[in-house]
Amino acid sequence: MEKRWQLLKISEESRRALYDPSASLEHYEKNIENCIGSVRIPVGLAGPLRVRGMFASGDFYVPLATTEAALVASYSRGAQAITEAGGCVSILLHEGMRRTPGFAFKSITEAGLFSIWCMENRDALHAAAGTTTRHGELTDLGMAIEGNHVYLILEFVTGDASGQNMVTIATQAICEYVVAHSPVTPKYHFVEANLSGDKKATAHSFVTVRGKKVSAEVTLPAALVQERLHTTPQLMERYWKMSAIGAIQSGSIGVQGHYANALAAFYIACGQDPACVAESAVGVTRFEVTDEGDLYTAVTLPSIVVGTVGGGTGLPSQRACLEILGLAGEGKAQGLAEVCGALALAGELSITGALCSGEFTRAHQKLARGDEANKEKGHG
Amino acid sequence: MEKRWQLLKISEESRRALYDPSASLEHYEKNIENCIGSVRIPVGLAGPLRVRGMFASGDFYVPLATTEAALVASYSRGAQAITEAGGCVSILLHEGMRRTPGFAFKSITEAGLFSIWCMENRDALHAAAGTTTRHGELTDLGMAIEGNHVYLILEFVTGDASGQNMVTIATQAICEYVVAHSPVTPKYHFVEANLSGDKKATAHSFVTVRGKKVSAEVTLPAALVQERLHTTPQLMERYWKMSAIGAIQSGSIGVQGHYANALAAFYIACGQDPACVAESAVGVTRFEVTDEGDLYTAVTLPSIVVGTVGGGTGLPSQRACLEILGLAGEGKAQGLAEVCGALALAGELSITGALCSGEFTRAHQKLARGDEANKEKGHG
Amino acid sequence: MEKRWQLLKISEESRRALYDPSASLEHYEKNIENCIGSVRIPVGLAGPLRVRGMFASGDFYVPLATTEAALVASYSRGAQAITEAGGCVSILLHEGMRRTPGFAFKSITEAGLFSIWCMENRDALHAAAGTTTRHGELTDLGMAIEGNHVYLILEFVTGDASGQNMVTIATQAICEYVVAHSPVTPKYHFVEANLSGDKKATAHSFVTVRGKKVSAEVTLPAALVQERLHTTPQLMERYWKMSAIGAIQSGSIGVQGHYANALAAFYIACGQDPACVAESAVGVTRFEVTDEGDLYTAVTLPSIVVGTVGGGTGLPSQRACLEILGLAGEGKAQGLAEVCGALALAGELSITGALCSGEFTRAHQKLARGDEANKEKGHG
Amino acid sequence: MEKRWQLLKISEESRRALYDPSASLEHYEKNIENCIGSVRIPVGLAGPLRVRGMFASGDFYVPLATTEAALVASYSRGAQAITEAGGCVSILLHEGMRRTPGFAFKSITEAGLFSIWCMENRDALHAAAGTTTRHGELTDLGMAIEGNHVYLILEFVTGDASGQNMVTIATQAICEYVVAHSPVTPKYHFVEANLSGDKKATAHSFVTVRGKKVSAEVTLPAALVQERLHTTPQLMERYWKMSAIGAIQSGSIGVQGHYANALAAFYIACGQDPACVAESAVGVTRFEVTDEGDLYTAVTLPSIVVGTVGGGTGLPSQRACLEILGLAGEGKAQGLAEVCGALALAGELSITGALCSGEFTRAHQKLARGDEANKEKGHG
Repeated sequence: MEKRWQLLKISEESRRALYDPSASLEHYEKNIENCIGSVRIPVGLAGPLRVRGMFASGDFYVPLATTEAALVASYSRGAQAITEAGGCVSILLHEGMRRTPGFAFKSITEAGLFSIWCMENRDALHAAAGTTTRHGELTDLGMAIEGNHVYLILEFVTGDASGQNMVTIATQAICEYVVAHSPVTPKYHFVEANLSGDKKATAHSFVTVRGKKVSAEVTLPAALVQERLHTTPQLMERYWKMSAIGAIQSGSIGVQGHYANALAAFYIACGQDPACVAESAVGVTRFEVTDEGDLYTAVTLPSIVVGTVGGGTGLPSQRACLEILGLAGEGKAQGLAEVCGALALAGELSITGALCSGEFTRAHQKLARGDEANKEKGHG
Repeated sequence: MEKRWQLLKISEESRRALYDPSASLEHYEKNIENCIGSVRIPVGLAGPLRVRGMFASGDFYVPLATTEAALVASYSRGAQAITEAGGCVSILLHEGMRRTPGFAFKSITEAGLFSIWCMENRDALHAAAGTTTRHGELTDLGMAIEGNHVYLILEFVTGDASGQNMVTIATQAICEYVVAHSPVTPKYHFVEANLSGDKKATAHSFVTVRGKKVSAEVTLPAALVQERLHTTPQLMERYWKMSAIGAIQSGSIGVQGHYANALAAFYIACGQDPACVAESAVGVTRFEVTDEGDLYTAVTLPSIVVGTVGGGTGLPSQRACLEILGLAGEGKAQGLAEVCGALALAGELSITGALCSGEFTRAHQKLARGDEANKEKGHG
Repeated sequence: MEKRWQLLKISEESRRALYDPSASLEHYEKNIENCIGSVRIPVGLAGPLRVRGMFASGDFYVPLATTEAALVASYSRGAQAITEAGGCVSILLHEGMRRTPGFAFKSITEAGLFSIWCMENRDALHAAAGTTTRHGELTDLGMAIEGNHVYLILEFVTGDASGQNMVTIATQAICEYVVAHSPVTPKYHFVEANLSGDKKATAHSFVTVRGKKVSAEVTLPAALVQERLHTTPQLMERYWKMSAIGAIQSGSIGVQGHYANALAAFYIACGQDPACVAESAVGVTRFEVTDEGDLYTAVTLPSIVVGTVGGGTGLPSQRACLEILGLAGEGKAQGLAEVCGALALAGELSITGALCSGEFTRAHQKLARGDEANKEKGHG
Repeated sequence: MEKRWQLLKISEESRRALYDPSASLEHYEKNIENCIGSVRIPVGLAGPLRVRGMFASGDFYVPLATTEAALVASYSRGAQAITEAGGCVSILLHEGMRRTPGFAFKSITEAGLFSIWCMENRDALHAAAGTTTRHGELTDLGMAIEGNHVYLILEFVTGDASGQNMVTIATQAICEYVVAHSPVTPKYHFVEANLSGDKKATAHSFVTVRGKKVSAEVTLPAALVQERLHTTPQLMERYWKMSAIGAIQSGSIGVQGHYANALAAFYIACGQDPACVAESAVGVTRFEVTDEGDLYTAVTLPSIVVGTVGGGTGLPSQRACLEILGLAGEGKAQGLAEVCGALALAGELSITGALCSGEFTRAHQKLARGDEANKEKGHG
């Protein structure tokens, strides 16, 4: 473990937060009620993972908090393959956090009038939101009319916070403004009417965004696929086809392997909200043999919900994990999302490789026998 | 905190595991690779939550591990309302863990022959699976033919384990058997071809099951709704209608509010796999005003993935949380799923109440101001 | 039949086209290849249906072409109930026809550059589309990047044509423009890459539009529900809840009863493309008991694909059906969509009434016995 | 046209039904109410289409009724390519028509008791259904409990009828039996509670069936792809990848191109219910370059709803179309479904070829100019 720490160059304080958490419970009291203690989730490092993003650039050792054996090893294997191939590109494509208040009227006619009025007064709505926050801003205003109900689809940027709290308060201000000023008064309204995708997987996310949308890609030479993943680009593409159609028949949203493993372990380590795994574990993975016979792989995640301020990001051990990445605090949320995308890419490579080479089962078998040898390799 | 501990009557050792985790890192080494320490997630108690299930019965204080302020308070509020109403019924409806290996053939004709052969030899497949496990058993065998590809849909019971590991090994045995004995040999095959819903939300889950399917219900008298949730059954039903249609328009799977919050905090506390939040946070919530003017509420979750042995359930602080529930170890997994259902019910009541009474935003506003007073109440 | 004709006041020529089609096959030769004759689909009238729309206003007798017994009678029953209640409001909310060409690049980086270039040159793209059509216009330009692939999401208005042909040609012009002028050249591209929802039900449609989005509503007094539908608003709301949750569990898109029946019969009668039933039969139906105890019902269809010029709309018998509605030719497509919405509303009322009163089965039983008496009433 | 007729060897009466429908309106009166005449839909022949199925075998000229120019030509082109390649295999995989009655109880406990009672009495339910029909039979009984609601999932075989009517009557008998005999009496119930997928696309269909599930495949040599479709297997596979991911991002159910075009034209010609296009136009298309460089293509449609008796199948012009196929009357429904699958395959080949070669747009452009020359070729 000492060797790993030396790789990281982080402060003694961070190190202590991760290694000896015994003294730190009082730091958590603003984040919990009815506290009786804490659970401890071990953190392993996956990497190095070379990322060439717009906001994150360099070789990252990614902290993953999990109690599932072999998970860190599997991600680490994928990360190393990416790094040996020269790294992956991971790009933040779009940002936006949504709230969708709902308003009930007497009739469609009133609903229509209200909608038109909102559109015409979007500057005022923007201003109302602006009174509540310096970091957030209303960036888009949409509308869904369903009979005499109107859903406003409000999209905000939220700075370095994941932003659910910020957009709720801003939306409340918008609701109060429209109720006070609209020429037609709603019979009742709710600050959130469940069209926002909060804490759930939705098809909606692909054509919009929830949080941060990231796409990442890498091309692994065939020789590297053989050496690191013990299979061929051809078989991995075949797996992709069969598994994509498997996912489609299951009625999943998007097609991917196990983004949730990456996201849960990363979110927990880095003080993100792990309930957001429900909405974030959606996207598209694609494997393709290139004209040169190498393996092109891309992942696209439309709903990464991360921040580097607020929530659990300031807690001692969680902040230490962000520091390991060099992504703690102001100005770092976009880079954090790009690392997320790169990590998901590493995981898709590793698990698909393991399913193609037969190592997926062998890893499970070794786990079942408690064979520790396996753990240095890790296959999903 | 002392008062809370006295409520719980658990062993000194468990108490220490939660309260002073400093000595315990070596216990985690079989569950992690490349370890550099641990993150600490504070645990709060929600309850008492009275559950009248087939496997779980009594008043539970539910440990929730989260860094999201107000979450525990909100669930606790819902739990207390349920308990005051006499408790909720929560019933395990169905169990089954799936693996879906995929086989590629030269033609549909071969695929068809293979499928028929599998059906005719299901006893042999059952036996092959049985060689790998004493706790698991193949309970259902389905098939999806897509051109020259065949997906076997294997469903197992897995005893008290969540079972992903167990079913992988059993499926491997089945794959080896069919490859060795089938009159048509697949060109290639994979032990899992992504029709199983592993780590992802799928529409499939409603008509099948993934893990454990639970439904829970409670009727809250109108007076209790007013006193505890500060709103009316009528408005809560109205919210349900608008939010259900909101969810439908977003392309979500099922309709519910925020199961993910309950599941993530509960899974982390109790040593479950938090990546399974991706597949578990799916279901149906229903609010209805009864003929007597009271509030009937039900939740149905078809994909709860929990176990009481294996995975992270034996780790010190995690096991302590299971002990708080009285649900550690053998024979307890079904009860754990019923508590999950009851907890999700508590959360849907609390958040919907908060959205109807306006407290949802006020809670967020207080959080933003760091107002601690709010935290004793908690609204989602 | 004579009496029905007198209601309609249409030209002798239209009447002949519907009643004696023997002479008209040559009119069809531009609409078919390898012709061997024609099938005859009988047309019945449902109505009167009172519509109070922005583009369609008045009492309509709606021509429905079907070979399914009881269908016309059922829609007619619903239409009459609406009319007795004073008519329904049906409002066109949004219009837009999509094409989604796809472009493949070497890398995400190139894909990103291309996307930015497209955004910066949207006026030129608008102009390129404009060279191909006087009636259509590019109204929105979106983008979905997935790895090194870019999908342009082009939305057009298309005048009175349903517009699939028009938008294909305009999209081709845009593709040619971008390939010629973009600083990065795609490796290959396709004029349509299947994100448009053409000929298929998609979740996408709710947050966008495909063709025309319409919402229609009516409130039926309780006495009228009893008299016409032989049930109560309370039971119809209960049915709605159970059936909405049924649909959700089936993994359908939206929740509704049988829009497809209305749309297929209406599209065939009026020279629309019946394959578009696949994309149009999606939406949300809502039933609600009002504070006064009456029945509020709304339908919202985001993907009505209709036109009054082009396609089959100029063929003799089809044009006669449009003339019966007073909606043939230029300037009428928006009204046609509003009638569609009203018709779907009539159908949801009638079938739900029949399911609540028990008449749904009795209608089927009578059909099975060939009992003609039933047909004057019609229940779904 | 005379030449085409000579190909077909059908009776003079059938020929007259298609060619001179003037005398036949009285035949339709049991299939329509409030009749004012008929619309005429021209019928073209696509083919020859060589099908090697279990129930349909031989070269078929497929009648398609449509007013969309180029549609028949496009399907004919695909059919001819299949035939030149030696024909396609099309296999009926599974049959079953569903009804899903819903029952409301006081509590989950009652719901559970009811469910268990139904399971224990499935023979009696089978018998109750059997009293209503000689052709249909209850083949599967499933259950979905949601709070205090129970949905029975009843699956029937229905002989040569599409069967919606038959299963409604049988389900009514089952409902009456359970209400009379169950130890717990439902508060209310409905013969259909919208979990059946009737008239709507559902994700449910892949893991079950609705009507008839068919899969069809063909391998086209690369030279034939070039000669007939003017493109290469490689580019068609690339198109498939991009379009599959396009469809996935749109939130469609399954991935396919335009099954709806085939199904609507075929259903209308052959007296099927065109509203069922809504549920049938769902499935999976797959294109793959084989190891030999040829093009493997498969389609799988889980929800083909067809019959050869009942509905519109006995009407003069519709019956003539069934006779052209040699699939009129008793014992032919399964073969009809296999032809449907083969036809969908032809269409996917033709449209994808056209999108790859650029002919898709050229076909639209020629249509726009009214250029008849195009029509002999046809590209989607």
